Amino acid sequence: MDTLFSNVTLVTMDEAMHVYYAAFLGVTDGKISYLSRTAPQEKPQKIINGEGMVLMPGLINCHTHLPMSLLRGYGDGHDLHTWLNDYIFPREARLDDRAVKAATLLSIAECLRFGTTSVSDMYDHTDAIAEAVAESGIKANLSRGTTLWSEDFDFETYPACVELRRLHGKWDGYDNGRIKAEASVHAEYTSNYKLWDALGEYALNEGLGMQIHLSETKKEHEACKEKYGLTPAQLLDCHHVFEARTAAAHCVWLEPEDMALLARRKVSAVHCPVSNLKLASGKADVIAMVKAGMNVALGTDGASSNNNLDLFEEIKAASLMAKDVQEDPAALPPQAALMMATVCGARAQGREQECGMLKVGMDADLILLDFTAPHLMPCHDVLSQLCYAVSGHDVVMTMVRGNILYAAGKWPTIDLDRVVKELAEHAMPTVFLDKNS
Amino acid sequence: MDTLFSNVTLVTMDEAMHVYYAAFLGVTDGKISYLSRTAPQEKPQKIINGEGMVLMPGLINCHTHLPMSLLRGYGDGHDLHTWLNDYIFPREARLDDRAVKAATLLSIAECLRFGTTSVSDMYDHTDAIAEAVAESGIKANLSRGTTLWSEDFDFETYPACVELRRLHGKWDGYDNGRIKAEASVHAEYTSNYKLWDALGEYALNEGLGMQIHLSETKKEHEACKEKYGLTPAQLLDCHHVFEARTAAAHCVWLEPEDMALLARRKVSAVHCPVSNLKLASGKADVIAMVKAGMNVALGTDGASSNNNLDLFEEIKAASLMAKDVQEDPAALPPQAALMMATVCGARAQGREQECGMLKVGMDADLILLDFTAPHLMPCHDVLSQLCYAVSGHDVVMTMVRGNILYAAGKWPTIDLDRVVKELAEHAMPTVFLDKNS
Repeated sequence: MDTLFSNVTLVTMDEAMHVYYAAFLGVTDGKISYLSRTAPQEKPQKIINGEGMVLMPGLINCHTHLPMSLLRGYGDGHDLHTWLNDYIFPREARLDDRAVKAATLLSIAECLRFGTTSVSDMYDHTDAIAEAVAESGIKANLSRGTTLWSEDFDFETYPACVELRRLHGKWDGYDNGRIKAEASVHAEYTSNYKLWDALGEYALNEGLGMQIHLSETKKEHEACKEKYGLTPAQLLDCHHVFEARTAAAHCVWLEPEDMALLARRKVSAVHCPVSNLKLASGKADVIAMVKAGMNVALGTDGASSNNNLDLFEEIKAASLMAKDVQEDPAALPPQAALMMATVCGARAQGREQECGMLKVGMDADLILLDFTAPHLMPCHDVLSQLCYAVSGHDVVMTMVRGNILYAAGKWPTIDLDRVVKELAEHAMPTVFLDKNS
Repeated sequence: MDTLFSNVTLVTMDEAMHVYYAAFLGVTDGKISYLSRTAPQEKPQKIINGEGMVLMPGLINCHTHLPMSLLRGYGDGHDLHTWLNDYIFPREARLDDRAVKAATLLSIAECLRFGTTSVSDMYDHTDAIAEAVAESGIKANLSRGTTLWSEDFDFETYPACVELRRLHGKWDGYDNGRIKAEASVHAEYTSNYKLWDALGEYALNEGLGMQIHLSETKKEHEACKEKYGLTPAQLLDCHHVFEARTAAAHCVWLEPEDMALLARRKVSAVHCPVSNLKLASGKADVIAMVKAGMNVALGTDGASSNNNLDLFEEIKAASLMAKDVQEDPAALPPQAALMMATVCGARAQGREQECGMLKVGMDADLILLDFTAPHLMPCHDVLSQLCYAVSGHDVVMTMVRGNILYAAGKWPTIDLDRVVKELAEHAMPTVFLDKNS
């Protein structure tokens, strides 16, 4: 046994939602090898005393754009479409691999610090993103967000599709599956059926997942119905987009028929409540989605529409907003909101056999939270504390496959000083300084 | 000069919302004595290097019930009235002064840790609360929340009014105004006109402020209209409740006429967005209130309906929820949300001459935030970061009147170990153990 967490409160997130107090969890060769109320016979190499601490599965952020930390707080105060077209897209056009890698490492440091052990990312410069993920030790499902504005399209030569195939060939399965490559239709309103058919077929044939933005704003949802006589979900379904395992971000304006359709197709919704509020996109009805049989996971979206990557904020926001949408204070209780960030996230990523709960044989993707601070005392209900009182800042250790990637202000795999220097010297000038000045 | 903050980013929250970079702020005898872009000639006793840090006015939490940290996470998942009657009131009936004092100290530690320098509190056992406030060094407007269920009422002998007069006589003006006593009608639906007339008159004659819960739920708002043919605001106004400086918590169901009336009476609304969402009470329209001319401050409410006392969460929630209510991503931008937690809070407390902004002559109620963590880089807009990306956990120092009350995990005026021991040995058994078991 490599590491033993002793005398710790275990929030298992298993099927029975067991919580064990003063319990023991052992890690061997990157996997959970022991879980019990009593100490093991075997002597571990290292003991981490978990008194006053909670140990739970690492959180899974199923929708983000890691390099967008570079644009955090840039162009606040606009609706999604204005914000994208007038602020974000022009700056993103200036990004290069080096800037993307630095910004991605910065975001991964933030994710790890706040207890996220696996992310789903949609962006470009995916080679640089994959390098950052590979170096850092975090898990990631990486996709090349793809738009298509013309009908002149050839899958073999279209640059974003070339990049997808390169991502697939070079990075899919890296480090025994720590990185997964996925296809990505950016959104219905930013592409057309030629892309949908091609990527849907590619993902299905190659066994890749699919990431997409779906019905995020009323404007795009209504425009699609006007143009095609179908909702975005119905339209994309006709073009086989959902035949691969799909994570559909936002899903704010889904109609009941959409939810039923997506449940049949086993599409996961990725709920991003903070981003949806900040951009005034609307409020997703996650209770209706769950009742329709959909799997619902959580995402922060990019740092520039949130403006941080603390998934614990998303857990609280999801629980609070469900109460608002349903006008019911019992809606989405702590247990259900925490499931969205763990087991449901693992399912959305196709990782439900490897992480999302504490169970012997699963990967040791673990986070430790200090419950001795004033804002976490007394503790009548550990799940309530995790949902309503905790922040990502309460995480004191983050482990992925048995490797400590964050502990007490340090990131053993990320040279943060170097990242900050790269941002200041390369990324910021590249993206923000006028090239003629 | 006692203390000089050097090379720091100053977010003044003054009328022009000045932000100064690499600036200097000096503190002498508990007051801000120097504020400039250049270093002072005078040599300070102590220098705090503020490189990478933001210095801003301490936050003002205008509605809370400090001892309720003892009930944090207890009875979650119910509407306000069920939660109060079936869970909270029966446990509160068991509280004694000793339990209240310990729980209050715990909450004050949390407030200070998250950057709050002044609170408005409504509860009973006010003598114990005042002792905790006095010892800790925080500022507080303390009120004895008063209910009246019968028409048999004598102001001279009614226990809660006796307690109010004691609070007033013993604690009002304590430590040169650090504590203010206030009157409090708990709410319209928990009392009757005899109390309203008596407390309204007492507050006005004695120059005290008034704290009240107003139109928190639709149920209470509609029941009042049904019973009296007036909204709670109109009814209480007829009984002179608003003639004293009043802070009205929640204001979720105010009607346009109520807002106009309350603006004329100079009543401050205390917006508690997280509590209102958690209890599914509804969403206050703060933009409409501001447009009607009302002063709007922020409150966490008690820890048991939030479930923490981090006012930075409230700032973000207020900004996000205003965008939702108005369906406008430009609604309540960072500057306006931050004002609610500082200058508007000071006005609601009758402290606008002493705190809420950085200005020479004002009390040195200051908080320092570390902006070098990954989730706060890069910084395109310091106000955006403070509203959307920061958490109370980013506060590294809290000062009230020049005294450091929290810094780097330590509370110089609070013996937290002793508080935790008191909670475990006295408060928890008193409130939660069945007395016959």
